[in-house]
Amino acid sequence: MATKHILIVPGDGIGQEVTAVGKKVLDKIAAKFGHTFTYDEALIGHVAIEATGVPLPDESLEKMRKSDAVLFGAVGHPKYDNDPSAKVRPEQGLLKMRKELGLYANLRPIKLFDELLGASSIKPEILKGADILFFRELTGDIYFGEKGRKNNGDTAYDIAEYSRYEVERIARKAFEAARTRKKKLCSVDKANVIETSRLWREVIQQVALEYPDVEVEHQFVDATAMLLIKDPRRFDVVVTANLFGDILTDEASQIAGSMGMLASASIGDGTGVYEPIHGSAHDITGKGVANPLASVLSAALLLDISFGMKTESEAVINAVDKVLKDGYRSRDIADATTAPDKILGTDAMGEQVLLHI
Amino acid sequence: MATKHILIVPGDGIGQEVTAVGKKVLDKIAAKFGHTFTYDEALIGHVAIEATGVPLPDESLEKMRKSDAVLFGAVGHPKYDNDPSAKVRPEQGLLKMRKELGLYANLRPIKLFDELLGASSIKPEILKGADILFFRELTGDIYFGEKGRKNNGDTAYDIAEYSRYEVERIARKAFEAARTRKKKLCSVDKANVIETSRLWREVIQQVALEYPDVEVEHQFVDATAMLLIKDPRRFDVVVTANLFGDILTDEASQIAGSMGMLASASIGDGTGVYEPIHGSAHDITGKGVANPLASVLSAALLLDISFGMKTESEAVINAVDKVLKDGYRSRDIADATTAPDKILGTDAMGEQVLLHI
Ligand SMILES: CC(C)[C@H](C(=O)O)[C@@H](O)C(=O)O
Ligand SMILES: CC(C)[C@H](C(=O)O)[C@@H](O)C(=O)O
Repeated sequence: MATKHILIVPGDGIGQEVTAVGKKVLDKIAAKFGHTFTYDEALIGHVAIEATGVPLPDESLEKMRKSDAVLFGAVGHPKYDNDPSAKVRPEQGLLKMRKELGLYANLRPIKLFDELLGASSIKPEILKGADILFFRELTGDIYFGEKGRKNNGDTAYDIAEYSRYEVERIARKAFEAARTRKKKLCSVDKANVIETSRLWREVIQQVALEYPDVEVEHQFVDATAMLLIKDPRRFDVVVTANLFGDILTDEASQIAGSMGMLASASIGDGTGVYEPIHGSAHDITGKGVANPLASVLSAALLLDISFGMKTESEAVINAVDKVLKDGYRSRDIADATTAPDKILGTDAMGEQVLLHI
Repeated sequence: MATKHILIVPGDGIGQEVTAVGKKVLDKIAAKFGHTFTYDEALIGHVAIEATGVPLPDESLEKMRKSDAVLFGAVGHPKYDNDPSAKVRPEQGLLKMRKELGLYANLRPIKLFDELLGASSIKPEILKGADILFFRELTGDIYFGEKGRKNNGDTAYDIAEYSRYEVERIARKAFEAARTRKKKLCSVDKANVIETSRLWREVIQQVALEYPDVEVEHQFVDATAMLLIKDPRRFDVVVTANLFGDILTDEASQIAGSMGMLASASIGDGTGVYEPIHGSAHDITGKGVANPLASVLSAALLLDISFGMKTESEAVINAVDKVLKDGYRSRDIADATTAPDKILGTDAMGEQVLLHI
């Protein structure tokens, strides 16, 4: 029976709707297992810009630092996307949060619920049994290097950078995880062209010496982008840089049937942050149709990783499994065989999950 | 009846085997249509390093400049891949060729031959009718910016750079192509994080004003990586930067059933270069099993784009179609339904194509 303080940071778009469901799930877990969870809320992204002028107010950061874990939604707004000269952007809040909290490791487990085998655009016989754990480096690379313009604004540049230390610490996390799984690690880079990738590969090779029981493979990112679709079962743990991880994990969401099913954990020096890998999805915001399961599964990751509550975490995952087995689907994972009365909106889907905890 | 000089540049690994087939196809076309094609050969990549110490000898470059078109194979060797500190690499030859010949536009048509609908890991009902033309920028971005080490080698950096001019010229090529197709252009960037992408988006928006008949969509690269698999038919022409194009086109090869089927054209200021998008594939080199069709289809692109020989180009494509309809498959595109005696090696597959020209 533990007492924990959880910060809810819904952010933009459907972040609000899905995080509300995630929070209810945490509440139910607390009640059922006799824990005391207290909550607070904080602003980030477009909603923070509207309210305070900045995408991550100091107050939000302070609250994050003081909490035991953060349940996060999404950031982003089309308004900025179509204005390349915008100086303040919702995404800056997200990047600042990652940097300030030292969230250097982003874990993205890609696993297909059996019930959703048919929901993917990939053939079931290719998918069945696929189970990948991505480690995406999250506080370095071209995301955080110097960027700007020269020649009167006619030339733009971005600097990608990695230090040995940055690669080492994420490598160790990935190797440790591989040890508890199938003992296979695939490191993805573009070492045939890029210098940061050459350092990356060097460090992985060195760290590998400490884990002789783990089988290591190095792949070029273009090959990985192809192999993830061609043969997803060949992967166990994948470790890669920030930008490549961004691209490959979104691609890999198709292995799980839908982005709406995928949770992620960002961990590092202090408070961990848990969030869906999907974005703010303004096209469906406010319609009550967003799939809340990625936020629910983020709550499960939070319980497991930040609170060490394995049983509680499994109770959440089993509830999701049960809801899917009962045939309930949100719109994004429904298909031609789904009965119309089994297609549920955000809240109704959440209620079904709560029923089974 | 034209006279043309074609330079054959096989490069490394299976490049040798597949380019030999591509050349035979060009020969047959010349004979059949009464053209005179003369040939020469040049070194690049690992084989060039072995023979001369450098990955692209001046002599090769000179021959390329003087030829009417180049039929290229592949470069690369595992020896360098696993040695992050190698100073001379096969890939440097490829990059130098692209830069020196001003090959700023890499066209990668992704189209599925009907006969191969079953060969992909993606469901046939998702694929049927997909037809995408990628324009990958090929002489800028992080590929060609300054790169190096600092802090005693403990920090690596790569600079990504784009100028307005570089984006404009590839944008125009892509818009022109969209006009001859479904009039839809998707520009892919990461403008929510990267400055070069913001410039990219700015320029695409400006050039779009000259093409009001073309419908433009901007996507973030992570979303595109996902949507290519989820719904490939939503794309017509896609234009993107060098690194994103590298990743996305390899991924998109799964739409065409296999990398072994995909050809590309690199064009720009002078001689055009035509090559498979697959690599040197040292794991199958020398075994005579490589699929030669990507090189054959590269020859078709060469005839069309560099020589303006539409009929000749179609004759090649139709021959490939016929061979597939006859049920012949190389190993990479064979499946459980392929009769063992229909699975052909590199040369035998080439012979079948020649029969139908
Ligand atoms: C919103 C964006 C800045 C972010 C990223 O690129 O990291 C998102 O795509 C993600 O993957 O969390
Ligand atoms: C071999 C490598 C340098 C090259 C690239 O990244 O451009 C290859 O992957 C390609 O796509 O032609």
